[in-house]
Amino acid sequence: MRDFSTGHRWLSINTATLRKSRGQDIALPRILDLCAARGVRAISPWRDQVAAAGLSTVSRMVKSHGLQLSGYCRGGMFPAAGAAGLQAAHDDNRRAVDEARELDAACLVLVVGGLPGALAGKAAHKDIGQAREQVHDGIARLLEHSRSVGMPLAIEPLHPMYAADRACVNTMEQALDLCDALDPARTGALGVAVDVYHVWWDPKLQAQIARAGRDRLLAFHVCDWLTPTRDLLNDRGMMGDGVIDIPRIRGWVEAQGFAGYSEVEIFSTLDWWQRDAAETLDTCIQRHRSAV
Amino acid sequence: MRDFSTGHRWLSINTATLRKSRGQDIALPRILDLCAARGVRAISPWRDQVAAAGLSTVSRMVKSHGLQLSGYCRGGMFPAAGAAGLQAAHDDNRRAVDEARELDAACLVLVVGGLPGALAGKAAHKDIGQAREQVHDGIARLLEHSRSVGMPLAIEPLHPMYAADRACVNTMEQALDLCDALDPARTGALGVAVDVYHVWWDPKLQAQIARAGRDRLLAFHVCDWLTPTRDLLNDRGMMGDGVIDIPRIRGWVEAQGFAGYSEVEIFSTLDWWQRDAAETLDTCIQRHRSAV
Repeated sequence: MRDFSTGHRWLSINTATLRKSRGQDIALPRILDLCAARGVRAISPWRDQVAAAGLSTVSRMVKSHGLQLSGYCRGGMFPAAGAAGLQAAHDDNRRAVDEARELDAACLVLVVGGLPGALAGKAAHKDIGQAREQVHDGIARLLEHSRSVGMPLAIEPLHPMYAADRACVNTMEQALDLCDALDPARTGALGVAVDVYHVWWDPKLQAQIARAGRDRLLAFHVCDWLTPTRDLLNDRGMMGDGVIDIPRIRGWVEAQGFAGYSEVEIFSTLDWWQRDAAETLDTCIQRHRSAV
Repeated sequence: MRDFSTGHRWLSINTATLRKSRGQDIALPRILDLCAARGVRAISPWRDQVAAAGLSTVSRMVKSHGLQLSGYCRGGMFPAAGAAGLQAAHDDNRRAVDEARELDAACLVLVVGGLPGALAGKAAHKDIGQAREQVHDGIARLLEHSRSVGMPLAIEPLHPMYAADRACVNTMEQALDLCDALDPARTGALGVAVDVYHVWWDPKLQAQIARAGRDRLLAFHVCDWLTPTRDLLNDRGMMGDGVIDIPRIRGWVEAQGFAGYSEVEIFSTLDWWQRDAAETLDTCIQRHRSAV
């Protein structure tokens, strides 16, 4: 297992972590400057932040700052209530693949979606099995394009508390079943993003990480689970402030040969997004050394 | 599958559902009166409510009202940071078994506990594997007593969002692995409580319900998952107001031969506990017919 205590060579910053400074939105170019100034070598930007700054601007800045992309957030949201919705999701996902390609991301992270309409508060139906079939079919179709441009897709199993509205793929086992079905040859075109926040609780986690193997471990995300957790979405903790044994899980991932970045992804309306982004970033760097 | 549309013979009221009326605590005897007045045949009371009213008083009232107990809430909370804590948990669980016996409950529901101290906001450690071992050992020890008095123990897998602080048994598969380990002969002394709120998201739910079989399906709890869910603990929905396909899951349970009560367990600080308890109970009865 790599020793992170002496530096942050393998730290990546998911740019949602620095989305707000003192409660105010800050633009992606400013985030990139903050990261570069501290010797952060990798980021994972969100599409909305890229769109706001302009893809070509971001692409230029990434290159000039010498940044790598540990991933691109995010594609997915496959299920829909009708054919037009399914097609729109596919078209949008193709664009996400192309953006990830332009930015030379290591992978496109897929948050696969849940029951159509649930995120807006009104689910079109209650058939999570159907949503899961649409996810299977949507990834199968997107793979045709993503393979052709060489962009790996990383299915991110989300915590079961998001099953209704954000992702109906909720365990590593389920994500890997999809990989087995859609890329049985393990070509590298399809794998998983392991976010400790979503999977730390899973009694089968170690076994499923081993099942994934190096081929399918495309990204590793860290933050922490707070007790109590005050909000289902935006109360993630800084590494070390919660109950997740992050080094243990990183050890399992690295035992499979994973040698990529540990990407910090913290959504925190109540705490970190209220602080100055420089303080948040400095804390990420420090905790990457001490708690990851 | 039983037809619930014409009556509420198989409705049970978990008394936490009526814990508050218009925001004020109401006592268990009042809850029992409300239930009996509407022809509700079964309840599942909480220990703190029973203690406040007095065990013998509650026992007399249950008999005089002709109520059955679909379960008794709850035992568990096995993990502890030291030997004294483990012993205290055991002693308390023995008392819970005895109370359940006195009230002639169908089973004692076990919410097994998580990381010691996490519920109070400060976990003693981050080793969920150790907590799970303590749960295994704690149930094994409690079984000696519960078998001797003929009180079945129902392990309730809790939603993974409670893994840290309330229960580190989070899937049916995990609960049934415990049953296999501790009661391989399927004697009926150990089984599971299936609460749709906790397990609805699980892609392996149908298969694991089939694995449980009639022997191990000791209780069936219903409420609904709201989108959005505003609080991790106390924002459960009334059946029909959320995204869970309750009849489908009940069908799976009944296909195994389960013929017991559908127990309504709703914690709702923001909605139902603000209403009059009579309105909440009347709505439970109506939704038992239309949405369970």
